[in-house]
Order: sequence, then C-alpha cells, then structure tokens
Amino acid sequence: MESCTNEDLDAIIETNLNSEQLKQFNRIFYGQEDHCELKLRLSTLMASKNENFQVCGYSFAASKEEARSPRILKFGLVQHSIVLPTHKPLKEQRDAIFQKVGKIIDVAASEGVQIICLQEVWSAPFFLCTREKNEWIEFVESPTDGPSIQFLAPLAKKYSMVIISPILELDENNVWWNTVVVINENGKVMGKHRKNHLPSVGSFSETSYYSPGNTGHPVFDTKYGKIAINICYGRHQALNWLMFALNGAEVVFNPAATISEFGESFWGIEARNAAVANSYFTAGINRVGTEVFTVKNKYEEKQISRTYYGSSYVTAPNGVRTPSLSKCSDGLLIAEVDLNLCRQVKDHWGFNMTSRLDMYAKELNAVK
Amino acid sequence: MESCTNEDLDAIIETNLNSEQLKQFNRIFYGQEDHCELKLRLSTLMASKNENFQVCGYSFAASKEEARSPRILKFGLVQHSIVLPTHKPLKEQRDAIFQKVGKIIDVAASEGVQIICLQEVWSAPFFLCTREKNEWIEFVESPTDGPSIQFLAPLAKKYSMVIISPILELDENNVWWNTVVVINENGKVMGKHRKNHLPSVGSFSETSYYSPGNTGHPVFDTKYGKIAINICYGRHQALNWLMFALNGAEVVFNPAATISEFGESFWGIEARNAAVANSYFTAGINRVGTEVFTVKNKYEEKQISRTYYGSSYVTAPNGVRTPSLSKCSDGLLIAEVDLNLCRQVKDHWGFNMTSRLDMYAKELNAVK
Repeated sequence: MESCTNEDLDAIIETNLNSEQLKQFNRIFYGQEDHCELKLRLSTLMASKNENFQVCGYSFAASKEEARSPRILKFGLVQHSIVLPTHKPLKEQRDAIFQKVGKIIDVAASEGVQIICLQEVWSAPFFLCTREKNEWIEFVESPTDGPSIQFLAPLAKKYSMVIISPILELDENNVWWNTVVVINENGKVMGKHRKNHLPSVGSFSETSYYSPGNTGHPVFDTKYGKIAINICYGRHQALNWLMFALNGAEVVFNPAATISEFGESFWGIEARNAAVANSYFTAGINRVGTEVFTVKNKYEEKQISRTYYGSSYVTAPNGVRTPSLSKCSDGLLIAEVDLNLCRQVKDHWGFNMTSRLDMYAKELNAVK
Repeated sequence: MESCTNEDLDAIIETNLNSEQLKQFNRIFYGQEDHCELKLRLSTLMASKNENFQVCGYSFAASKEEARSPRILKFGLVQHSIVLPTHKPLKEQRDAIFQKVGKIIDVAASEGVQIICLQEVWSAPFFLCTREKNEWIEFVESPTDGPSIQFLAPLAKKYSMVIISPILELDENNVWWNTVVVINENGKVMGKHRKNHLPSVGSFSETSYYSPGNTGHPVFDTKYGKIAINICYGRHQALNWLMFALNGAEVVFNPAATISEFGESFWGIEARNAAVANSYFTAGINRVGTEVFTVKNKYEEKQISRTYYGSSYVTAPNGVRTPSLSKCSDGLLIAEVDLNLCRQVKDHWGFNMTSRLDMYAKELNAVK
C-alpha cells in the first residue's frame, strides 16, 4: 500500500484550532460541538496496533420515549486495501484478503457489533478499470455459495452478526451483476440487492461488465434493524436514497470504491445530506490503498494505477456525523445508535410529511 | 442588530492553518485548493465600508469549447437585516429596508451584476413566527404592482438587471402565498413561482398563513440564463431541486429565512449537494440579524426573538463553492460564472444519463 501524502484533515483541524474554535468547527461541519466517542476494549486497541488497522467508535443517542424502549444497534464498517499484487493467482489474492478482514470482523464481534458492512467488491482488487473480463472470472461468484459467502456465513453464525457482503455476482445464466448479499445472524442468506446506477466515467466503465440492477429498493428487516444498501455510484442519485426511506430503512449503507478524481470533495456530504433528507442513518465505506494492473492484449499494453481514499464515515438522521476514518489505512468504524432517533427526527423536521410525492410522481411521468 | 457571538468560521480556518493545510481543507470542504476571487472596484470597497455591508466576489471558469462561446453570467445575492424595530409603522419599516437594499443593488449594478436575488420575504421582518395575520397585512402585496415590485422594477430597467423578488403575495381572492416574482431587464414581471414545501416546525408554522405552491417548477428563460427559485424549506426536498434541473435550470436560487436551530450545520451542504446532483449552479441566501416581536392577544402575551445566521454562498455544478458571507452583517455576494460548465459537468459525471427516471416514476406512483 502506498503511503498517504497528506496528513488526515481531521487531525490537522484538531491540532490547529483551540478548543472553542474546534467546537464551532465541529458544530458546523459535523453537526455537534463534540464527538461522542465510544470507549473501546483494551484487546481491541492491541489488535488495532498489532494488525495495523485503525479502530474508532462513536455513539448517537435519542430522546427517551414513554411508548418505546431505546432500540440500540451497534453496527460496523470495514475499509481495507488489497493484500497481494494483482498479478498473483486470484485465489491467493482472495485468501489473503479473507485472512485480513476476518481478523477485523473478530474484533468487531468482541465489541458487540451486530451488523457489519464491507466495502464494494471487498474480496478482490477493483479490476473494473481494466476492461478485461475473462481474466478475472474467478472473482465473480455465486451469491448463495460462492467463496465470499462461504467464508462469511460461519462468522455471521458464530458471532450472531448480520454481514453485508458486496460482491460481483455470476448468476445461473452466467450473467454478471454488482451485488450485495445480506447474511443473517444465523449465517443464512436473507437476500440480495443489485447496484441500481452504474458509472461510465473515465476508465471506470462498469456498463461493459453488467447491467443496472433489477432488484428495486429492498429493505432487509434484520433481527437488529431495517437496513438497505445503496451501492457506490448510486449515492449521486437522490431518488435511490429516497426509495430506501419510503420502503422503511433505518440504516442505509453505501459501500463504494472511489478515487480522488471522482468527487472526493463531495464524498463527505452526499451520504450526510441523504441522512438528513431521509431521516435515517447512513454509512459511507470506501476502500484504501493503491491497486496496480497490467493490461496487455493485441490492442494495447498499459499499466493502470488507482488509489482509493478511504474516509469512511457515519451520519445520523439529525445530520451529526463522525470524523472520517483514515485516507490510507485499513479501518473499523463502530457506531452505537438508538434507532428511535429516525422517527424522532422525521417528526421534528417533517420533510417526509411535506414531500408531496403524488405531485412528483405525476411530474416524473411527464418527463420526456 | 445583535452582534455575532462567534467569529466567522472561514476566518478562523484561514488564520490557523498554514498554506498547505489550507489548500487541503479547501479542496475537501470547498472543492478546490484556492478560491478564485474577483477584483472589485474601488467604489465598491468604499461603499461597502461607508454603508457597512460586506462584498465578496468569486469566479468559476469552464473549459473552452469549439462549438460554443463562453456564456459568462454575473449574478449577485443580497443578505440583510431589517432596519427598524417591528413595532414601527409597517410602511416605515419597509421604506427603510428599500433604502438599504437599493444602495446594495446600486453597487451590484456598478460591478456588472446581471441577475440579482434577494432573500425570502426581503422587504419585511419575518413575522411568520408570530402566528398573527391581520396585524401584518400591509406586508402582503400584489406580485404585479405591490410596493416591492414598484420599488424594484425601475431599478431593473435602469440597470438592465433581472431581479428576483421573494415576497408575500395577496392574490385577487385575498389568498396569501409565499411567492417569488421575477422581474426582467426591462422592468417587466416575467412570472412568479410559489413556495412548494412549507415548514410547520416549532414556531415557524407557515401552514397557518398559506398553502403549498401550485405553480410547479417553472424555469425562467431570462436574457442572461435559465434560472429557477427553490424557496427556503424546499431545499430539504431532493425532488424539488431535481424538477428544476429537468426543466432546464442553469442557476437555482434558494432564498431563505432560517435560524440556527433549523439545521445550520447542513445549510452549507444542502444547496451544494443539489448543485452536484443536478449539474447546475446553486445560491443559498439567508437573512441576518435579530428580529423581536411582541405578541399580545386574549390568549397570550409573549416576546419572540429570532436570530438569522446569514452565511449565503454559491456552488458550481462541479461542487466547488464559495466561502460563506458573514453570519452577522449585511452582504453582497457576486459570482461570475461560465454557464457552459453545467453541460460539461453533466457530460462528465453522467448523473442525469444514469438516473433511470422511468423506474422512479413507477415506484413513486406505487407509494401508498
């Protein structure tokens, strides 16, 4: 992994502002004057040091209610780099990622994480910039019994943890999809969702690999809360976020693979804006590290290098967000939230009540 | 006007970070490493000092094209406080605001501003927190020949300037509306738009004054560019922003009247997010100062005080935004933009091309 050239911005701000200034900065840019940090276990801090990944935890409270008990959910996000160079045998590459991510999931479990979301195409390098297909077919797998699911299902069961696994899917007709699989706390596949909006920007021409998803906007009613997944580029589409809200989501995960030129300056506001607009929690997850590919065929020979900027973060429905995980290093972000906050915020702001969806349905129908 | 308790955040950041750190901060939070400031005229700087209002100017360039010449537009935003206490005769209050805003428009004209947008209900205190109606009727006016239009139309003609005037409208049936009137460069009313989404949050119960707008999402094809207006609370509705884009807007103004408790921490990201999502320029305008009202009737007697936080700003379709105007003082923000940037960004990101609106029209129709 390439070392980062920039010091993380959150650290710069914290170092250079005095405490009053920092409160003001946090209030405007993060939604509250002080972050509520979770106290982590000593074993977590040691694992973080030994295995070289960052761990942060934050809590989000809600007001007490007479009619409902608090509904506390602890969820986690994992961002990571690949382990081996991309020219190594694909199975070796994947196994090395399994080993690394498995250790992070172990730590998440020890912290009581109930739902965890991995990054887009987590068990492979993001080879979709190569425009090659057949060379990478070993990374395209069954959503019910492919290697990624076989690896994760026992962990889900062992830890009673819901695991969200974004993979590349090969369906029964050998058609590719960009898919997330939701594994329940018993290690069973609850269902899947296929990426609704595909980028064709610069070298990320995903439309040459698969079609836009045909699974609509499912919300998974897990044991621990109602969740949905907006995959990567879908974060640019307000209606994608909206439909998950209308279908009842309380947390929407946005697993991504995105590089600096692709809007790093609005990475920090799109998922945050969506949390506010839709009165749910959002979680953006982006990979880290540099991935180098050599493309060699009868038309061209080139080396492609892509550096991902990490910066995963969580936002509450009231707009309060965590700092970002590092731009460079592997990381686990834990959020302890009270899901009651979703309805409380929705009731307070009334954005849903005032949304006039019937008017927009008509107007959208009339668009030529 | 109450003096501000917090130093402006942009100034704090600029003072405390070194130049490399500031570039990194600007790149992430404002979309580019350095702001492109416009050089202002000496007479502007003197007027700013003498009349005690802030003036800032920024430019946004686009790439050169073979098929189109640059389409340069200079637009302005005005944020201001009221002048007289709210118990004074209403006509006196309004005339005092006219005098102040007239001077700012004069300066804007001298800088070559072609389109200017005033704040929500610009010619009155924002009395909608009182829940009184009849007491304030003098501030509710005809959109074709009310006092605000009579004051602005000659200025529009004199300066060949399009002026966007957000007022409270009294229609021919004595029904109230929250309306913006667009006056063209000849001083004629081009049309109007009525606020689509109304807040009923805390004491801002606008639904007791008027109904949600019935004018859809008009885009005004002015001499200088295609513009639309998303009034205040409508900024929380992604579909409101979207429809203006689908109808062809190149600049969407968001005149508002909003206080700290109403989401100051996402004021800076909602209009910015909308600019990115919809490939157009956006401009958020919020009033400043503290307004105090005494409500006295047979049910209650109380004093209401509301402090508005200003912080008006402009964002380009590529996510690059200006710093905010002050939280406290009157201000004029000037943006010199090349409207060609809208299509360039739309072509680059493809958010419109990949939006699958037919799918969403069906899904929204099916919402119960």
